[in-house]
Amino acid sequence: MSREQQIYSFVLLLAPTEHVVVGATAGHQAHAAFLHTIEEVDPTLSALLHAPGVSTRPFTVSPLRGLGRPRAGQVQLAPGRECWLRFTALDPAIYQRFMARFLSGAAPVLRLGPAAFLVKEIRTTPGSHPWAGYSSWWELADRARPEPEVALRFCSPTAFGFGQHAWGKKIAVLPDPVPVFSSLLRAWNNLAPPALQMDRGPLLAYLEEHVVIKRLERLRTEMLHYARSPQVGFVGEATYGLMADDEGARLQLNTLAAFAFYAGVGMKTTMGMGQVRRLSDAR
Amino acid sequence: MSREQQIYSFVLLLAPTEHVVVGATAGHQAHAAFLHTIEEVDPTLSALLHAPGVSTRPFTVSPLRGLGRPRAGQVQLAPGRECWLRFTALDPAIYQRFMARFLSGAAPVLRLGPAAFLVKEIRTTPGSHPWAGYSSWWELADRARPEPEVALRFCSPTAFGFGQHAWGKKIAVLPDPVPVFSSLLRAWNNLAPPALQMDRGPLLAYLEEHVVIKRLERLRTEMLHYARSPQVGFVGEATYGLMADDEGARLQLNTLAAFAFYAGVGMKTTMGMGQVRRLSDAR
Repeated sequence: MSREQQIYSFVLLLAPTEHVVVGATAGHQAHAAFLHTIEEVDPTLSALLHAPGVSTRPFTVSPLRGLGRPRAGQVQLAPGRECWLRFTALDPAIYQRFMARFLSGAAPVLRLGPAAFLVKEIRTTPGSHPWAGYSSWWELADRARPEPEVALRFCSPTAFGFGQHAWGKKIAVLPDPVPVFSSLLRAWNNLAPPALQMDRGPLLAYLEEHVVIKRLERLRTEMLHYARSPQVGFVGEATYGLMADDEGARLQLNTLAAFAFYAGVGMKTTMGMGQVRRLSDAR
Repeated sequence: MSREQQIYSFVLLLAPTEHVVVGATAGHQAHAAFLHTIEEVDPTLSALLHAPGVSTRPFTVSPLRGLGRPRAGQVQLAPGRECWLRFTALDPAIYQRFMARFLSGAAPVLRLGPAAFLVKEIRTTPGSHPWAGYSSWWELADRARPEPEVALRFCSPTAFGFGQHAWGKKIAVLPDPVPVFSSLLRAWNNLAPPALQMDRGPLLAYLEEHVVIKRLERLRTEMLHYARSPQVGFVGEATYGLMADDEGARLQLNTLAAFAFYAGVGMKTTMGMGQVRRLSDAR
């Protein structure tokens, strides 16, 4: 694995080809559209990406963005109305296959359920769109500074699953530092090069003892209206204080905070949930 | 102890006697004013109420309310400008002594630091003020229904202390069901009649396994500007789902939710923090 292995965040500017009604979330449809696009070029990779039982999938899918206000979970779109989707790819093969499909000259159309969208543009260059960019595992680690404060903006509903009960799945919807950063740590350790692995035990101990919330702003729950069942998550901003002066732990948590832009946080990050970014990166 | 032992929430309508500048929080001053008022009538009781090392104090003190927007943590008040303070008393002796002071014919003046306020009225009757009321331990327990949802409004900054570290005291500012309800449970068990004690172990187990947050609204942190150091806490609304169908646990948690109006939640409830009420009671 090359030291420069890239990770990508790319934005598709979309326009419906006719009057369409889409679910305000479109999480499953966008997920399916992403895998279908890969499948057209590389069925083996696509199968791998939706193999069951994988704890960290190397991609994320945003909700459909730029829509108006939904009515009963649905949005009407006219042909001219531009909207966008963001995907991230934590493996360069995924990005390459996805782009190959749209560079191949075939009609650049993306289907979200019954609705067809013209892909007007795909933006990956940093600065070309607030949610576009690329980096590499090494760059994320190298660029981290041991900042004692980390502010995250939870831009789409974020939640953590805590196992099944007789009454259903236990879901936590608070930006508690432990699940937030241990979700990022799990994704990092599952996907980053071996030389960059973080030692889970000491970092969890630091998280539990020495990380506090210093500020919360505009925190609230929102529902995602999936076809099968609604799903609750929280959005808003949280600033974490990395209180104990431990440069190693602070560097790791700052690395993970920057990684959040690519990895997302919590459950169902491949279906629109857990879109998160560090606030200093967003400003 | 009588079955009908009352607990009280009473509101003092105040008007400054001259132009004054007060701290926007006035938590320590209101606390001192409360104890001073008791002391004038019953020095022994007052001494008891501020004895060190007591884990649950049988009273709470609200921030000074009805003020304008503070500038640099301070508010200017003109003589006509009405504001208010709320106290709760979880022991009838405290309420009786406090009221005795103002029924005694002495000048009804309350001092918050250097500022003197005329006590225009004291309201205790339910309905006479949104924050006035009385109940009893037995009534709170009897009236509880096993509702599967409990919504709380955190009206003044609320926080939980988790011990001292080299870098300072660890403070948690999330409406996590476990610290919220275990704070109420601790106060209840420390002050309620023996026959109404709740079994801590099973209720904590229910809280940890079966209580989730279903909705959050307008959650954010706010600072209280105490003289010595600022103190952060959260305000906003949280709706808790009592998921497992356990009537006993649901009755206890609904009792504690109603009790929150009198007991407050978390740390420094005698200095303006942790003013909380059940939303169904507030509507």
